[in-house]
Amino acid sequence: MVPDTIVAPATPPGYGGLSVVRISGNIACDIGLSISSRSFLKDRYSTYSILLDIDGQKMDDGLLTYFKGPNSYTGEDVVEVSCHGNPIIVDRIVSFALNGGARLAEPGEFTKRAFLNGRLDLVQAESVGKLIESQSIKASKMNNKVLSGHLSDRLFEMKNDILSSLSFLEFEFDISEDDDLNTGLIKKLHNSLNNNILACDTLISSYSEGRLYNKGAKVVICGEPNVGKSTLLNTILDMDRAITSSIPGTTRDFLESNILLSGVPVALTDTAGIRSSNDPLESVSVDRSRREIKNADIILNVFCGSTLPIDYNRDRKHEILVYNKLDIKKPPVLRRKVISISALKNIGINKLKTELIKRLIKNNDSSSDIILTTRRQFNSIKECKECLERALKILVGGGAELELIAFEFRDSINHIDILLGKTSIDDILDKVFSDFCVGK
Amino acid sequence: MVPDTIVAPATPPGYGGLSVVRISGNIACDIGLSISSRSFLKDRYSTYSILLDIDGQKMDDGLLTYFKGPNSYTGEDVVEVSCHGNPIIVDRIVSFALNGGARLAEPGEFTKRAFLNGRLDLVQAESVGKLIESQSIKASKMNNKVLSGHLSDRLFEMKNDILSSLSFLEFEFDISEDDDLNTGLIKKLHNSLNNNILACDTLISSYSEGRLYNKGAKVVICGEPNVGKSTLLNTILDMDRAITSSIPGTTRDFLESNILLSGVPVALTDTAGIRSSNDPLESVSVDRSRREIKNADIILNVFCGSTLPIDYNRDRKHEILVYNKLDIKKPPVLRRKVISISALKNIGINKLKTELIKRLIKNNDSSSDIILTTRRQFNSIKECKECLERALKILVGGGAELELIAFEFRDSINHIDILLGKTSIDDILDKVFSDFCVGK
Repeated sequence: MVPDTIVAPATPPGYGGLSVVRISGNIACDIGLSISSRSFLKDRYSTYSILLDIDGQKMDDGLLTYFKGPNSYTGEDVVEVSCHGNPIIVDRIVSFALNGGARLAEPGEFTKRAFLNGRLDLVQAESVGKLIESQSIKASKMNNKVLSGHLSDRLFEMKNDILSSLSFLEFEFDISEDDDLNTGLIKKLHNSLNNNILACDTLISSYSEGRLYNKGAKVVICGEPNVGKSTLLNTILDMDRAITSSIPGTTRDFLESNILLSGVPVALTDTAGIRSSNDPLESVSVDRSRREIKNADIILNVFCGSTLPIDYNRDRKHEILVYNKLDIKKPPVLRRKVISISALKNIGINKLKTELIKRLIKNNDSSSDIILTTRRQFNSIKECKECLERALKILVGGGAELELIAFEFRDSINHIDILLGKTSIDDILDKVFSDFCVGK
Repeated sequence: MVPDTIVAPATPPGYGGLSVVRISGNIACDIGLSISSRSFLKDRYSTYSILLDIDGQKMDDGLLTYFKGPNSYTGEDVVEVSCHGNPIIVDRIVSFALNGGARLAEPGEFTKRAFLNGRLDLVQAESVGKLIESQSIKASKMNNKVLSGHLSDRLFEMKNDILSSLSFLEFEFDISEDDDLNTGLIKKLHNSLNNNILACDTLISSYSEGRLYNKGAKVVICGEPNVGKSTLLNTILDMDRAITSSIPGTTRDFLESNILLSGVPVALTDTAGIRSSNDPLESVSVDRSRREIKNADIILNVFCGSTLPIDYNRDRKHEILVYNKLDIKKPPVLRRKVISISALKNIGINKLKTELIKRLIKNNDSSSDIILTTRRQFNSIKECKECLERALKILVGGGAELELIAFEFRDSINHIDILLGKTSIDDILDKVFSDFCVGK
C-alpha cells in the first residue's frame, strides 16, 4: 500500500519572519504546484511563488522547495512551503494541503517515515526528538552524535563481532563429532564475550551522563524550619519564586523551579522544613519532603546558627552541606566540607553553584565518547549484556552446552536489532515517535 | 559605504521540526561556507550540510540556501541556514555568524534593506510587518494586497495624474503672456482635482476597515450593577475570565479580553456597573467605565428585569441593546431593536455575536478594493487631499493664482512620495521598521 501524503507546520508556532509547512508523500508535489499555480518544481531549488488560498485568491508570497524522493528527509517526495511567519497563514497552507488530499501528520511521523524508508535507523530516529528538546549545547552535540550514527556504528561493530562468534560456533555444530570445543575457539569466544560485555558496560554507565544533560538533575533544598531554604531557592534562581518570611514553616507545598547550570537542566526543589530526623512524620508536607529528599540527585542540606545539619541518610556524594546566614554568625567547625553562604546577602552563592555542578558532573561522568540518551537504549544494552554474561558463565563453567551459548548469542543480537529497529515491533515504534513534536 | 552583514533567527522562537537563521550582506556567503565547511554554495539551491559550532565541532545537520544578490529578499547576498528547531542550536548559529563578522539585525532590518535596495517601496515594506501580525485570513489577504503593490500602483496613478496637471500648468507659465488660464485647461485641472480628491476619499474611508481587521474593535459591556455583565463576558469568551457573584458591584477594575469574531479581533471589556446616567461620578471605577464606553466601537448596553436600559448618549449604530436573564423574565416591549439573551444559560449568545459582527463590519465597510492599513498611510493621504482641495478652491475662486495652484500640486505629490518612501526621511524609516519582529 502506498502511504498517504502528510502535512504539518515544521517551524515553531508563533509570529516571525517566516514559517515553513512540510508536505511529504506521493502527491506532495501536486499540492505544491496547485498552491503556487506553477507548472513545475525543480529538485532542491527554492522557487519564489505566490501562495493561493483554498478559494483561489492570493494569500501570501513565499518560497517552495521540492526535495525529490528518495533523497529527501522522509525518503518520499517532500515539498517545504515557506511563508510569512504568521499562524493564520500557516494554518491556511495546511488547510490547502488537507483539501488537496493530504492528511495531518501525527507527532514524529516525518521521522517515522524516514526510519521506515531506511533513511535513519531507530536509534538515529529517536535522537531527532532528543536533539530538538536539547536544553544546552552540550546536550545538542551529544544527541547530534547519535543522529550522525556514532552509536549505531558502535552497535553494528558489537553485532558483527557477536555474529562472527556465532558463526564459528555453528560451524562447530556442523563439523564437530562431539560437544567439546577446541581450546582455540573457547579462547576466542571468551575474549569476544569479555570485550562486548565491557563495551556494554561503558555504554550502560554513559546513560547517567546522557540523562543528566537531556533530562536534568533533581536538586532538593532541605533542612530544619527557618534556616532560609526558600530564600536560598530565590537567590539561586535570582527571582522571587517562593514566599519567604521569618515564620518557621512558611513553605507548605514543595516548590520546583527549573534552571540551567553549565548546560545541565536542574529542577530545584524547596521543601517544607523537617524539624529533626527522629521526629515522627507529623504532616503530609514533611512526608512529601522526605520523598523528595530520597529521590534527589543531590540534596543541599541547609543549617545555620549553632545547630548541626540533620542526617538524612543520603550518601556523601549526593549531599552538600550548606551553612546559611554567614552574615549573622560564623559557621561551626565540622569534619566534613561545608559551603558557607548568606542566601539573603547573596554571599557564596556562586561557590555553591560551582560545587553543585562539579558534583553533578562527577557523579555522572562516564568518560565515554558515545553516550546513551534514552531509557530504551539503556534497557536494550542491559538485556544484551545479560545474554552475553549468561553465555560467558556457561562457557567458563565448562559445560560447553553449545546450543545454549548460541541461543544467548542470538538473543543478544536480537536486542541490538530491536534497538536499531531492524526487528521492528509496532508498539516500540509508536512509543519512540509519539513524544515528538508534530512537523518532524 | 558598504553596509555590514546582519544575522537573526527568521522563524518564531521555540521548539519544532526546524528553525531558520537568516544572514544578509557582503560576507553572508563566507559565513555560510565556514559554518558548513563547504567550498561553494549554489544560488537558490538547498544544500544539505553539517553545521559547525564556533569551536569547530559538529553541532547539527541542516540545509543552507543561498540567494545571490540583488535577486534576494534584501537585494544583498542572503544565506538561510535551516537547522533542527531548537532555540539553543539557533542561538549558536547566530553566535557563529556574529563571530564571523556579522552583526545582530535590528527589528525589521532585513525589510528595511529590501526597501533601501529598491526591492520594495515603503508602503509595501510596512505591510510586511502588518502581514506577519495579521489576526485573520481576511487581514492577511488585505495586507498581502498592499505588499503586492496594489496600493502603490494606485498612488502612482494619482501621482502621475497630478504630475501631468502640474506640467500643463508649468507650460502655461512659460508660454502665456498673462495670468489667465484658458478654459480648456481650467476644465482639465478641475476634473483631475475632483477625481483625485475622490480617490483620496475612497482610500481615507477604507482606513476604518483596515483598522478593524488589523487592530480590531473595542467592544464594551455596560449597564447597571448586577445585570450580568461579567457573566456575559465569560459566556462570550467561553471561559471564566471575570469573577462573578450575585453581589452587585463585584467587578471593580474593568477587564479586557481578546477574541476573534469572524476574522475581526475584538477587545471585549467588562465594566463596573453604572447605576444611572444622572448619578454623580461616584468613584474612580465608574469614571473609568464612562471613558471606556466613550471610546468603544460598539457598546453592549445590558439590562434585565423591569428596568430600562441606561442612556449612554452613544449613537444607535454604536450601541446594541441586550436584554439579559431571559430565563427568569420576558423582555419588555421597546421601540428599538433588543437582543434577548440569557448569559447564564447560554441562550441567544450566537445571535448577539452575529449582530455584533454585522454591526462592526457595516460601520466600517469601505467597499474599496484597496485598503489603507496604517495610520501613516491615512495621514499622508489626508494631507495630500487637503492640498488638492486648496488647489481646487483657488481654481474655482477664479483668482487663477497659478503659482499657488502649482505649489499645492507639488505639495500633494510630496505627500505621496513620502508615503512611498521616495523622499526618505530617516525618522520616518525608523518609525516604520522599529515595530517589526527581528528576523524580517
